[in-house]
Amino acid sequence: MEFTFLGSSAGTPTRSRNVTALALGPRGPKPWYLVDCGEATQHQLLRSRYSVMQLKAIFITHIHGDHIFGLPGLLTSASMLGREEPLDLIAPPQVGRFIQAAIENSDSSLSFSLNLINSEAEGFQWQDEYFSVTAVPLSHRVPCRAFVFTERNLERQLQQDKLRANGIEAGPEWGDLQKGKDVQLADGRLLKADDYTCIPRAPRKLIVAGDNDTPDLLADACQGAQVLVHEATYTQDVAERVGPWPQHSSAEQVARFARQAQLPNLVLTHFSSRYQSGTEGTPNINQLAAEALRHYKGQLFLARDFDTYRLEKDFTLHRLENSG
Amino acid sequence: MEFTFLGSSAGTPTRSRNVTALALGPRGPKPWYLVDCGEATQHQLLRSRYSVMQLKAIFITHIHGDHIFGLPGLLTSASMLGREEPLDLIAPPQVGRFIQAAIENSDSSLSFSLNLINSEAEGFQWQDEYFSVTAVPLSHRVPCRAFVFTERNLERQLQQDKLRANGIEAGPEWGDLQKGKDVQLADGRLLKADDYTCIPRAPRKLIVAGDNDTPDLLADACQGAQVLVHEATYTQDVAERVGPWPQHSSAEQVARFARQAQLPNLVLTHFSSRYQSGTEGTPNINQLAAEALRHYKGQLFLARDFDTYRLEKDFTLHRLENSG
Repeated sequence: MEFTFLGSSAGTPTRSRNVTALALGPRGPKPWYLVDCGEATQHQLLRSRYSVMQLKAIFITHIHGDHIFGLPGLLTSASMLGREEPLDLIAPPQVGRFIQAAIENSDSSLSFSLNLINSEAEGFQWQDEYFSVTAVPLSHRVPCRAFVFTERNLERQLQQDKLRANGIEAGPEWGDLQKGKDVQLADGRLLKADDYTCIPRAPRKLIVAGDNDTPDLLADACQGAQVLVHEATYTQDVAERVGPWPQHSSAEQVARFARQAQLPNLVLTHFSSRYQSGTEGTPNINQLAAEALRHYKGQLFLARDFDTYRLEKDFTLHRLENSG
Repeated sequence: MEFTFLGSSAGTPTRSRNVTALALGPRGPKPWYLVDCGEATQHQLLRSRYSVMQLKAIFITHIHGDHIFGLPGLLTSASMLGREEPLDLIAPPQVGRFIQAAIENSDSSLSFSLNLINSEAEGFQWQDEYFSVTAVPLSHRVPCRAFVFTERNLERQLQQDKLRANGIEAGPEWGDLQKGKDVQLADGRLLKADDYTCIPRAPRKLIVAGDNDTPDLLADACQGAQVLVHEATYTQDVAERVGPWPQHSSAEQVARFARQAQLPNLVLTHFSSRYQSGTEGTPNINQLAAEALRHYKGQLFLARDFDTYRLEKDFTLHRLENSG
């Protein structure tokens, strides 16, 4: 599993950080999924390995402009490129209305079906061959969700001893069973894949959260998760100065939660544009890292645009070379 | 007068060219005006001298997405920066509906009044202290306009001999007359500024056209204009291959028109993303220049993002150093 930050700035873009978007692929860029789509996400894609032609679904955490204003351009550009593959858009209902208004009032049309799926529906769940995705309600100024991506269809391991003990020798049937297919033998016996294979590892599980002032809401979802991507808009002192109205988290808040939840990997993102990214300038993004590290002892990362991460089957998380 | 291209690509952005937007200032970046606002115009502004806080009016040539999808982000970012100054938005009525839908469906609000002015109204005219702006209907798939910016309030020159001949000696009255103010003398005489001053030069006049397949529609407007900024989406051979549906102009078409209209300066923009910008790659942007030069003998420029041009009072046009 790989994911790439296409934006890591809160509210407004800066010269080095775009507003929120994250690309996620089960095995690289084909196919891939987009979580949030701030303005100029399509521009960021031009500098990444991801193409809108291989995009399978878009997940929108909430309706704020810095998470959705890139949708009209991304969708109509996909159309101009001739995309025909249907596209799932998992989002609050207002997002559909925004897109409809954008299309209607700009003489546009889409060359593919856009399937609007209400992310706020009771018991929401989405899945394809790679992932099962559920949503966790968060606490923000508007309804907001974290999306929990859990790997599906893990590789099966044949129970060879059991097969041989039952007189089934190596052959094409073994291959089918390993792919999860049940097999009918020549002698009439039906072999169930689940009886002759096992899945030797737990699924990878990644959580991408939207804006949220209460990380504790993710406590249950974090069980068995290897990575949490969560906003840390401010340091604690700035959060206190700004007051509770924006309903964002501080680095300290998220770090404390991640420690409590025993999360092995925490990736912070969605930084207020006041934080400078270079080695100079105050307030600086390094203050967010320093604050988080005082409270969290797992592996901590701060998102940068175009940073790609790989979550291995053994649950280790690596940051790959920046491709931007 | 200065203007800066913030985007010069047609339809979709490329790595080196954003979709359409042009910044125009009567005397640098304060105040300034925006013509069209493709997605990520606010991002381009971060790399320019123009700030949304000093933006006085936005002119939209037509409703296509590559000319308007940057509006929601630009406006809400201005709001997050605390802008209070009202802003005029001169545009087709659909643009207002698009912005309203964007704001309503993203839990946004604006901290300033947005004055929607219908650019398609009969006899449209807009003016402030610097410019009088009129609109010329063009020919495109949707109603589209060119905006004609004509300088206002030119410096007056005192007719000193006439003043002295009428017994009016140098004094504060001379200053008022030169500013265009009528003056009441101590002896009761009313001096009209227009009677004692003259304007020693013609106004600068710049036309920024939207998408258009019939440059001839600008023939009248081009009289007395020093600069035409016009799309040249394709070379002639590509235009013929693409067919008439997109209703764009070729470089040849615009160049022929500009020669006929005896325009001293022509700036082409809005290039199909198929044209490569570097020294290598085919089709290349240089083909558009070569084609135009075969038909036009005035001063020709091809727009590049962040190129700034200065139109002097003596009507010469210079391209300044690229600031991007």
